[in-house]
Amino acid sequence: MALSSTTYSIKSKSFMVRRYTSPDEYPFTKNLPEPILPPLSYPELLAPINFDLNDKIYSIYINEIVPAITKRDGFDGNNGSSATKDVEVLQLLSRRIHMGKFVAEAKFQDVKDGPLYKELIKTGDSKGIMELLTNKTVEERLLKRLRRKAETYGREIDDAPIDKNDGLRIKADVLVDLYERVVIPLTKEVEVLYLLKRLDY
Amino acid sequence: MALSSTTYSIKSKSFMVRRYTSPDEYPFTKNLPEPILPPLSYPELLAPINFDLNDKIYSIYINEIVPAITKRDGFDGNNGSSATKDVEVLQLLSRRIHMGKFVAEAKFQDVKDGPLYKELIKTGDSKGIMELLTNKTVEERLLKRLRRKAETYGREIDDAPIDKNDGLRIKADVLVDLYERVVIPLTKEVEVLYLLKRLDY
Repeated sequence: MALSSTTYSIKSKSFMVRRYTSPDEYPFTKNLPEPILPPLSYPELLAPINFDLNDKIYSIYINEIVPAITKRDGFDGNNGSSATKDVEVLQLLSRRIHMGKFVAEAKFQDVKDGPLYKELIKTGDSKGIMELLTNKTVEERLLKRLRRKAETYGREIDDAPIDKNDGLRIKADVLVDLYERVVIPLTKEVEVLYLLKRLDY
Repeated sequence: MALSSTTYSIKSKSFMVRRYTSPDEYPFTKNLPEPILPPLSYPELLAPINFDLNDKIYSIYINEIVPAITKRDGFDGNNGSSATKDVEVLQLLSRRIHMGKFVAEAKFQDVKDGPLYKELIKTGDSKGIMELLTNKTVEERLLKRLRRKAETYGREIDDAPIDKNDGLRIKADVLVDLYERVVIPLTKEVEVLYLLKRLDY
């Protein structure tokens, strides 16, 4: 075989493939090695307002999300596999929540709302900004869509006909609740923090 | 915050969390570092017949599967992200295919078929073993279930009612075809290779 598995053998070294150089990815770790791939140039859609909520996301993940989706007691030995899934989920949560920067930028540039945001930013009115960017109708639609996702992708497949009410591997209620209590508020927090500094650029 | 993100900062070093020490995981790479977690003891379900088809799986992935699921031309720049997904898919394929060892062991221990396998193994009749372990009904049921999985998990979710025939992110036909041509035959190859050596233990 031309492409032998030994050609990419690992010698106790991490190879980065440009993860976290993308403007929608924030690492939970520091002192990452340089990517082995050449840098990509991304379109500059955001003002260079550099912050992230990863410490907070990490803390909420450990203290709220994990207890909500796992059994309280017992140890199944799979802490290695769990750790790899933790990393995956944390990165997905982080990416989703920091998307708020892009949402905020679009709102800032909006012809109608843009000037309203500018006024609020000038006086540092974070409460006013939060009120202006909150759209309950959109949030409810999002939660409805999330429930449908949980009911579809979380479904067990067997030979029986598809039934909406059983065979779910995850409880849709738990997911919707976490989104409502954690993901949406953190996303909006990102939006507010971004907007508060937006006039500096 | 008690659990600071700096506590698990990476210093150009790979940390293994016991992946590939599990009897259903086969690495595509060599010279892996030692896990930082203590070893787990797994129940000894298999005879110690050590082989894997990862070189073959890797070659088929590159030469058949990737061309079947990607566009032939063009470069979207996402080779870093693609590489991480390649690793994930290769590991899943490998795990699924090497499950054949467990299937073969169960067949070998079967009260009815066990003696038949022993006869065929004694004469090294790999063709006969392949025929005995092939169950077309089971294969067809598996492919049918796979199609339902693709139609369920591969569905786009929007506000419109669920319709079986559109909004699929992947073509169920392509997936079923790859399973029929690649995954099932390789799994059966694992079963035959395992059984051929089974009487040595």
